[in-house]
Amino acid sequence: MQTLEDRKHAARAAFEGLADRIIATFESLEAEASPALYPGSAARFERTPWRRPLKEGADQGGGVMGMMRGRLFEKVGVHVSTVYGALPADFAAQVRGADKDPNFWASGISLIAHMRNPHIPAVHLNSRMIVTSQSWFGGGSDLNPTLDAARRDDHPDTRDFHARLKTACDIFDKDWHPKYRKWADEYFSLPHRGEKRGVGGIFYDHHNSGDWDADFAFAKAAGEAFLDVYPQLVRRNWDTPWDAAERAQQAKWRGRYVEFNLLYDRGTMFGLKTGGNVESILSSLPPVAEWP
Amino acid sequence: MQTLEDRKHAARAAFEGLADRIIATFESLEAEASPALYPGSAARFERTPWRRPLKEGADQGGGVMGMMRGRLFEKVGVHVSTVYGALPADFAAQVRGADKDPNFWASGISLIAHMRNPHIPAVHLNSRMIVTSQSWFGGGSDLNPTLDAARRDDHPDTRDFHARLKTACDIFDKDWHPKYRKWADEYFSLPHRGEKRGVGGIFYDHHNSGDWDADFAFAKAAGEAFLDVYPQLVRRNWDTPWDAAERAQQAKWRGRYVEFNLLYDRGTMFGLKTGGNVESILSSLPPVAEWP
Repeated sequence: MQTLEDRKHAARAAFEGLADRIIATFESLEAEASPALYPGSAARFERTPWRRPLKEGADQGGGVMGMMRGRLFEKVGVHVSTVYGALPADFAAQVRGADKDPNFWASGISLIAHMRNPHIPAVHLNSRMIVTSQSWFGGGSDLNPTLDAARRDDHPDTRDFHARLKTACDIFDKDWHPKYRKWADEYFSLPHRGEKRGVGGIFYDHHNSGDWDADFAFAKAAGEAFLDVYPQLVRRNWDTPWDAAERAQQAKWRGRYVEFNLLYDRGTMFGLKTGGNVESILSSLPPVAEWP
Repeated sequence: MQTLEDRKHAARAAFEGLADRIIATFESLEAEASPALYPGSAARFERTPWRRPLKEGADQGGGVMGMMRGRLFEKVGVHVSTVYGALPADFAAQVRGADKDPNFWASGISLIAHMRNPHIPAVHLNSRMIVTSQSWFGGGSDLNPTLDAARRDDHPDTRDFHARLKTACDIFDKDWHPKYRKWADEYFSLPHRGEKRGVGGIFYDHHNSGDWDADFAFAKAAGEAFLDVYPQLVRRNWDTPWDAAERAQQAKWRGRYVEFNLLYDRGTMFGLKTGGNVESILSSLPPVAEWP
């Protein structure tokens, strides 16, 4: 019989394994990119472990921040963390199952890639298991093209990204992809501007179908789908040269990405409220952004 | 006998008059700056009126967004607005005196100047009168040096900025400057980083001493202090040449400014929650910011 501790252990191992494989794949791409378009030497990830401060002598977990600042990957973060302890009282009231007992456990991976070439869309991935008096999976992935012309549902990158996520979801339940794609459209948006952040993907939270094994398999499948499709989009676009006007479009859309992350992002909020590692939480912010 | 309507009218006229004089002064500085350090032609402010959408046919106010993108003033906004109507229910609960009756009236000026030369500090000014079932003044001004070396209490710019604001406050009550300077230190800070946003200034809210005429005079004096001292700081620093490393420091501190405005700024929150003009609310964001 599987205990809750077994499940936590398995989820953590899966997130950390996924991060390792993504990092290896991204380092290969960084090494392989054309020197003509991407001068300089290929970068590697720098991994920095961090711990949450002890609370009354008790360990509260921590994580590893992985950052690469490269020639193809202008700024990419792939982070894992496993944190636990008690949520601050004002925040516990907002977290499912924590209103009476603020103790929580959370493990996850988060990733954001800002690419140098504006023809390669930026991308975000998050996957986490959270335990309070309840337990669930949450996460998502969305594609953020930085050229106006690519911000369309009928662009090949958009189509392929959605199709691959759909395949991952459909194995489990045909209702999940439409539901989680719609949620992504609603969530990854800037209501103050009446704009979408990118072209969407999937977003899910409080995912608990009653079958933990299936839910865990789903979380893993969503991660594999990302690792399968995103490198294909990188390779498709990486040899397209760019100009200053395209970099300016990229900088503008990166500004929108900043607005989303600081105004609305649940992960940013959760991290800052639970005393997470500020440097890794805010590593999602782009290297350069413009508000012309 | 002065009615509430008289007071609203007077406050609005004062804010609009201050904006006009600041704009005239900034345009003079922009015109006068050395062509050697600031090539290109001098810019002028562009003023764009906007209205809040009608609600059930009723006018809800609006404002004028004033923007200049120039050679000395890389990006500066000087905005006035006078808005009224009903606050959204969830927001009304957080606004003093609006928990039972969501009707409000607010008029004010807001200003942020991002200068091209990293030796000239960025600056922010806000002044507003708000009426719910209660009425008060709020506002502040703070100096945001963009070079590490200038982010000190004993830097001449910091000293002169604080001294001038102190003079403005001390006319009314010797307790106000220490109180409002301390509040600025607390408010203009990034708790998630354990950093101050700049070198402070004054911040006040719910200012109502019981003597409206004195409070109005204080709000006006704070605006005059800004208009007196900031152009002096511009002139003191504008002939100092800068290099790429100093621009990089500026871009980093501008990133912090973005974090503050999107995570904590009350005015940004108030504007976005009350359906203000998004373009003028977010015009405070710097032209370029970096998170290296």
